[in-house]
Amino acid sequence: MLSPIPELATPQQRQHVQRLLDRKTKPLGALGRLEALALQLALILQTDKPVLSQPQLVVCAAEHGLTAQGVSAYPSEVTGQMVNNFLAGGAAVSVLARQHGLALTVADCGVNRHFLHDASVPAVQRSDLKVSLKVCKVAGAEAGTADSTSGPAMTLAQCEAAVAQGQQLLRQLPGNVVLLGEMGIGNTSIAALLLSKLAGIDIESCTGCGTGLDAQGLAHKLQVLKHVLERHTQAQAPMDVLAALGGLEIATLVGLSLEAAAQRRVVVVDGFITSAAVLVAHALQPRVLDYCVFSHLSQERGHALMLQTLQVQALLQLDLRLGEGSGAALAWPLLQSACSILSDMASFDSAGVSEKLPFDDASH
Amino acid sequence: MLSPIPELATPQQRQHVQRLLDRKTKPLGALGRLEALALQLALILQTDKPVLSQPQLVVCAAEHGLTAQGVSAYPSEVTGQMVNNFLAGGAAVSVLARQHGLALTVADCGVNRHFLHDASVPAVQRSDLKVSLKVCKVAGAEAGTADSTSGPAMTLAQCEAAVAQGQQLLRQLPGNVVLLGEMGIGNTSIAALLLSKLAGIDIESCTGCGTGLDAQGLAHKLQVLKHVLERHTQAQAPMDVLAALGGLEIATLVGLSLEAAAQRRVVVVDGFITSAAVLVAHALQPRVLDYCVFSHLSQERGHALMLQTLQVQALLQLDLRLGEGSGAALAWPLLQSACSILSDMASFDSAGVSEKLPFDDASH
Repeated sequence: MLSPIPELATPQQRQHVQRLLDRKTKPLGALGRLEALALQLALILQTDKPVLSQPQLVVCAAEHGLTAQGVSAYPSEVTGQMVNNFLAGGAAVSVLARQHGLALTVADCGVNRHFLHDASVPAVQRSDLKVSLKVCKVAGAEAGTADSTSGPAMTLAQCEAAVAQGQQLLRQLPGNVVLLGEMGIGNTSIAALLLSKLAGIDIESCTGCGTGLDAQGLAHKLQVLKHVLERHTQAQAPMDVLAALGGLEIATLVGLSLEAAAQRRVVVVDGFITSAAVLVAHALQPRVLDYCVFSHLSQERGHALMLQTLQVQALLQLDLRLGEGSGAALAWPLLQSACSILSDMASFDSAGVSEKLPFDDASH
Repeated sequence: MLSPIPELATPQQRQHVQRLLDRKTKPLGALGRLEALALQLALILQTDKPVLSQPQLVVCAAEHGLTAQGVSAYPSEVTGQMVNNFLAGGAAVSVLARQHGLALTVADCGVNRHFLHDASVPAVQRSDLKVSLKVCKVAGAEAGTADSTSGPAMTLAQCEAAVAQGQQLLRQLPGNVVLLGEMGIGNTSIAALLLSKLAGIDIESCTGCGTGLDAQGLAHKLQVLKHVLERHTQAQAPMDVLAALGGLEIATLVGLSLEAAAQRRVVVVDGFITSAAVLVAHALQPRVLDYCVFSHLSQERGHALMLQTLQVQALLQLDLRLGEGSGAALAWPLLQSACSILSDMASFDSAGVSEKLPFDDASH
């Protein structure tokens, strides 16, 4: 059951916040995209002095049956190894979460391991990182999805259960903002498949080198993905497409983003794979987009097309292609800055600063 | 007297840090431009665990005689009003400096006011912002530059004195990193003139709307700037060009950036005007560039060309056009992240993570 997503704001609310921004001591619009971000955050949080509280970075991890077809440069067990690395504080996202005081939740959405025991020691060693593990496994898919070259990645019931896991996880998290990331060897393949299928774009344009395939590896990946699409032509409704193509972490992210929007929380979207989850979420409930901040444009081929498809623009362009929520964490301070601009900057009136000359030729 | 700037690093040092980055638990190069930034910071600070300490944001402010020709949408007295706003904590840069714990120094390089008295009250009111005023006025140009349509903006002696003020100011600042910004109504004109003159680019391509000129205002600005360039064809050496065209805050920034590089400090460069100072500094001492991090690509016409001329790329592209050091402050957390990546991330060995498959077809 998806919760209804409220309309973002009334035209009056929008106008009110825009007017406040325009009265700040700076030339009109001089803070560029930071102003648009400030407006969006104010409208999501329904206040003209937005404060982001208890930010939650959620990294959803799962394995993919499709990796049996050799679509990734890394072996599938790296997914579980990296989850341990997240929990131990040594991964990029752990380091960035610590830097910014983001509480890190790692969700096991279908990794072929049991983490609670493995992770307990290193998680304690890094006490300045708030990290916790949530087991969000789905019955029958505890170790990952099935290989979609020979059948659906998930049954529809498993797919819906994974979405529901995401919704439930969101409800357990405090705060008014979630930052979403993922880990799953092989999941640039899944994101490419979802983009191709849902947006009707040829699979070549959607497919990139992922974690580092060479030209030969990329050609092989493309062949596999073509085969998968041919295998699942019958899937058309968004949830059917998601079930057919995978993956579990993406389905969980769909649930997280939809429920976050339904609760008027800010959703900070990481890169190519997390955006694919939003693409699916958008197909289910278009209003979800109003609550999303796209953190960065990934170097992975397909992400630019995906953002174009969603008609959104990302904040950062740093040629990242790591996932994990690393881009979302890197963009985080920009959201805080946007709030501060609105809350703390003086207006022309309060600061006693002269305004733009009333006539274009006033000083000629 | 300019201090010599040391060579950035040996090939061995470069290779050592690059190898450390390559061993971190992420696909090779997956953190994109953050990795290049980490490398640069490590080499500047000569350590493979760089730590940025006591960051100093310096905003140089001055007035411009050229404003008498109506080149800006705002009256010249806004320069002084904004300096008060910086000190009172209400400007964008004050808000951002507070967010990131940057010590803010506002340098009066030639503003037609006396600030020490004006600013004392509001500066105290915002005790969470570390802000101080430094008077860096130059004899004979206490209230700003002369109008360059009828003579040089500064005498060569005044220009050299302003550069020396910047060097001296840098030596008084603690820490290993400075973030440079500016305030000066009319100074997009000066930056456009410097770019045109030093890089041999036609003035049209260098000239934008600044704080918000309309088409008519822009046409007038362009006419004035053409006239200024014709008036000063004889100026050729970088210091002569700077003296002829201005301005005092730019000359002070030249001194700040050169002395910072000479002391192996990281220099975070703001937008169009601060980059113009680096353009001049580079003409004087090319090695300064190795120590500069360009924080953002401004929306102001001319900045893209300026960065191209210097063959550098900026970190952020947020359509900012405010100055004040706001872009430098917004990029600041990225520098901290780059350091953390190098200092805190696990390596494949330490985290027990499997590496890329040794053969391209290993899992086929």
